[in-house]
Amino acid sequence: MADYKAPLRDMRFVLDEVFEADKLWASLAGLEGAVDMETADAILGECGKIASQVLAPINREGDEVGSTWKDGVVTAAPGFKDAYQTYVEAGLNGLGGNPEFGGMGMPKTLVGQVEEMVQGSNMAFGLAPMLTAGACLSLNAHGSQELKEKYLPNMYTGVWSGAMDLTEPHAGTDLGIIRTKAEPSADGSYLVSGTKIFITWGEHDMAENIIHLVLAKLPNAPAGPKGISLFLVPKFLVNDDGSLGERNAMSCGSIEHKMGIKGSATCVMNFDGAKGWLVGEENQGLACMFTMMNYERLGVGIQGVGAAEASYQNAVEYALDRIQSRAPTGAVAKDKVADPIIVHPDVRRMLMTMRSFNEGGRAFSTYVAGWLDRAKFSDNAEEKKHADAMLALLTPIAKAFLTDTSLEVAIIGQQVFGGHGFIREWGQEQHVRDIRITQIYEGTNGIQALDLMGRKIVGNNGAFYKLFEQDVNDFIASQAANTAAAEFIEPLKAAMENLADLTQWVIDQAQGNPNEIGAASLEYLHVFGYAAYAYMWARMAVVSLPKANEDFYKAKLATARFYIKRVLPRYIGLSAVVKGGSESLYELDEALFVTA
Amino acid sequence: MADYKAPLRDMRFVLDEVFEADKLWASLAGLEGAVDMETADAILGECGKIASQVLAPINREGDEVGSTWKDGVVTAAPGFKDAYQTYVEAGLNGLGGNPEFGGMGMPKTLVGQVEEMVQGSNMAFGLAPMLTAGACLSLNAHGSQELKEKYLPNMYTGVWSGAMDLTEPHAGTDLGIIRTKAEPSADGSYLVSGTKIFITWGEHDMAENIIHLVLAKLPNAPAGPKGISLFLVPKFLVNDDGSLGERNAMSCGSIEHKMGIKGSATCVMNFDGAKGWLVGEENQGLACMFTMMNYERLGVGIQGVGAAEASYQNAVEYALDRIQSRAPTGAVAKDKVADPIIVHPDVRRMLMTMRSFNEGGRAFSTYVAGWLDRAKFSDNAEEKKHADAMLALLTPIAKAFLTDTSLEVAIIGQQVFGGHGFIREWGQEQHVRDIRITQIYEGTNGIQALDLMGRKIVGNNGAFYKLFEQDVNDFIASQAANTAAAEFIEPLKAAMENLADLTQWVIDQAQGNPNEIGAASLEYLHVFGYAAYAYMWARMAVVSLPKANEDFYKAKLATARFYIKRVLPRYIGLSAVVKGGSESLYELDEALFVTA
Repeated sequence: MADYKAPLRDMRFVLDEVFEADKLWASLAGLEGAVDMETADAILGECGKIASQVLAPINREGDEVGSTWKDGVVTAAPGFKDAYQTYVEAGLNGLGGNPEFGGMGMPKTLVGQVEEMVQGSNMAFGLAPMLTAGACLSLNAHGSQELKEKYLPNMYTGVWSGAMDLTEPHAGTDLGIIRTKAEPSADGSYLVSGTKIFITWGEHDMAENIIHLVLAKLPNAPAGPKGISLFLVPKFLVNDDGSLGERNAMSCGSIEHKMGIKGSATCVMNFDGAKGWLVGEENQGLACMFTMMNYERLGVGIQGVGAAEASYQNAVEYALDRIQSRAPTGAVAKDKVADPIIVHPDVRRMLMTMRSFNEGGRAFSTYVAGWLDRAKFSDNAEEKKHADAMLALLTPIAKAFLTDTSLEVAIIGQQVFGGHGFIREWGQEQHVRDIRITQIYEGTNGIQALDLMGRKIVGNNGAFYKLFEQDVNDFIASQAANTAAAEFIEPLKAAMENLADLTQWVIDQAQGNPNEIGAASLEYLHVFGYAAYAYMWARMAVVSLPKANEDFYKAKLATARFYIKRVLPRYIGLSAVVKGGSESLYELDEALFVTA
Repeated sequence: MADYKAPLRDMRFVLDEVFEADKLWASLAGLEGAVDMETADAILGECGKIASQVLAPINREGDEVGSTWKDGVVTAAPGFKDAYQTYVEAGLNGLGGNPEFGGMGMPKTLVGQVEEMVQGSNMAFGLAPMLTAGACLSLNAHGSQELKEKYLPNMYTGVWSGAMDLTEPHAGTDLGIIRTKAEPSADGSYLVSGTKIFITWGEHDMAENIIHLVLAKLPNAPAGPKGISLFLVPKFLVNDDGSLGERNAMSCGSIEHKMGIKGSATCVMNFDGAKGWLVGEENQGLACMFTMMNYERLGVGIQGVGAAEASYQNAVEYALDRIQSRAPTGAVAKDKVADPIIVHPDVRRMLMTMRSFNEGGRAFSTYVAGWLDRAKFSDNAEEKKHADAMLALLTPIAKAFLTDTSLEVAIIGQQVFGGHGFIREWGQEQHVRDIRITQIYEGTNGIQALDLMGRKIVGNNGAFYKLFEQDVNDFIASQAANTAAAEFIEPLKAAMENLADLTQWVIDQAQGNPNEIGAASLEYLHVFGYAAYAYMWARMAVVSLPKANEDFYKAKLATARFYIKRVLPRYIGLSAVVKGGSESLYELDEALFVTA
């Protein structure tokens, strides 16, 4: 099994050369010179070492042994507790946190690269800091000053971890129907009762305390999503001096047996009148959640790319090492009984597909992170508003397209190994099982597609789409004189024209029939994703063309060409599928779906 | 978790109405009236019961516990031994076997349906009869009369099972480089020595003896694939009176830890001068294997469809039961807090996609099985030759397209469940893990695509393709006056015109550059597959149109329309991908694939 190698060179390319991070960061008032590429390099290098040397080595055993539950106590998978200590001591846990409470205030453009390495080397582990960061985001945005002072510092250092408690057995996508209740107490706190499921790292032994953010309903709250409030419920109550008090009335009833991310504990959490504090306004719980949603959804997309990169690295190593049959154009390794399988066109097709998705995904996630940074750190109201609109549009694409393509990458990465890819020891099948969850949690990819198509496209009659289109068109216009780039720009132009046409088509269809939105959504999101990656590849190619004699840029251009010629055209078929409409989805009566 | 329900109604439709099995069977001299639809119905009904009542109930535990190895002894997963007994006592094991030695001589058109139910209810179990059947096919075709008399009867009854020993640690796709040796003994037998891996059910406790067919090299055999011979190597030597003698010098060194099909034992087999007998001619081992290859490859495709059907059944049950959010067109289940998720367009898209692939796959596998039957049972040399050509062409498509689409189906079937799809107890993630192997073993799907594109298309300049095209065109011509069928026929015509164009394009490209074959192969196979399924759907629609007032046919037509409008158009994008050519696959130097 290959080691994990942090893709630092490509991260630097994306940050520094493609998106000119130094310029971006310097332009954002809220960042106040907190970071430049030099600092970024140091952080990325340090994280890369931890990923390779600490997190990757415990990934396989974490999958085999898993986290375990006994009588309500969860023991993290072997090695995870020590690794967590190393991770938080390196200061990585509070990287994106609010400096007022001990966070490092770093932009998502940088934090996203760190996340890729952590998730790529060990996704089950990476979920712990990811959930803590999400809980901190909500708390920081909506909690009272008192709550923030009491909880955030220890969460940023990682002494305490965070968990998000949304789902209930009967309520996943539809949070409006949750049943967990919160009764007000005389002291201003609440007593929370109910059962939550799928609570990632809801219980474990890596941190001293676990701070849960729990969605619950107040007495007499309105029905549906407008009657949900958010509560902070700590595993151990915290005394006024900051020391830990008694155990709260909550417990982990069991952990799930899952397909993947087995190193992580996915908990059933029972709240039996647990003491909690309101975060944000009453009945505004969902809005409080949405604050962190854009960050977390992009983070899930990045998880996919991280693990897909690990799969790619293994596949390349195997393809260079494994010898089997001869190249179609004649023997290459004449001193051996067969050639390394990388000589075969279909193996190259597989590896190039993996590269083009991974590097495209890394660029796209950084592009979206740039809008998160503008929305958060700009002091210009216009720029903030523009960034918010871009985020609203692009976040569901980042979540779903990055994870859908990452599953494809991981399946290919397994296929390169032939029969060995099916054997657990080689590690490739674990990536498939781990990545699979990224298409499901944090809003299934179907829900992402519906959000995109319904709220972000049809809901505003394409207004957000026009902003993205303008961004791409500005880039295209800037390359008008760059004839060498035409091989990338022209296909991008065609993909964007198709996307514009398809967008309008769906908007028109939806006027007469609301079912057209959901009928079009999944494939529409993919068509959008392929065009967005074409934009990324064109931008990367434009940067690389003047340096085409250097290996790194040569490889970048080759991969760009592959993407344009061998991947991008898929959108043509998918667009035709979208135009197949919704009619054939509703011809069959529900009862007739059952196998006769 | 839903129960497995044998899709008998659809099997009957495909056999009786679409392919008119009674007519086909009656026309084949070699079948000698062995079977008609009435017999077929009885066999299918009996098998359906065993699948639902015996095999499906032990599928989940088989996955959780697996088969286990201790000191060379393999214990089959819990319940498997009893189930095996039930299965063989029902007479299902020798269904396709040679009647001269106790087989039932049934055609593959029927046996394929049985396989679908067995594999669909429990793929890990199904591998045992599948491997035995494969070994019997080779032995029956190439073994001496003595070997056949000695071994086949007990293999057909299932008292003994069979195993195929091809792969070695360094030799999978490239069998020409195997190292296992066979030294001739004075008594006409051979001593076989070497290590084989990935030997499915190579060792277990369900049958009294295990008959291995082992590829090995004779002393001074030519290098490469032309120096391989096939040997029969029994676990226990068989005395002349048929009783079991001493244990042969072979052992199971370990079993693999796999992603799926965990109920089955995947064995490392060590041969330490084990006594064996030559099957077929010296150095003709690969040819002997190819006899069973077409059967087994189609069988693997059927495995995929079987498990995909099980996934579909669960998904439908869940989608009818699970309530979450409201239909886009307004509340449907007004007495509940939410609607069943089957009201949502994206859920319907998922279920309809599953239906269209499963039913399309069932029809296509039966169509291909029809050519197997003609090739085997016809007494007309022309018909045999025609059937052999069709099989050569269609077998790699059946293997790879059925399994690729089945993985898509299983992934969708998991997605319908949201977070619950990731939890093992629900059974949906197991189908993903089980089906995944079908894309890998019996020749990876990449190898299938290369076989199709290289040997079966370019290798004969499209001659085999013309036969298939003629078959489809004959059907299209027969419907010239059927205006009601035009909605199916016209898109089929367009798909076939595109396929013809693409076929010629690849043949032309390959003249100048052999890499074009492998570069085009995978996506070409998919383009072919989509067209072939369009042919199946058009045939099924034509049969259904006159009975459109009955539920079954109404559902069939709705699914046909969905396939035509919402799935088939994918080929347009894939064809453009194929025409992207091979150039961009070879721009990147091997060393530059490694992550910088």
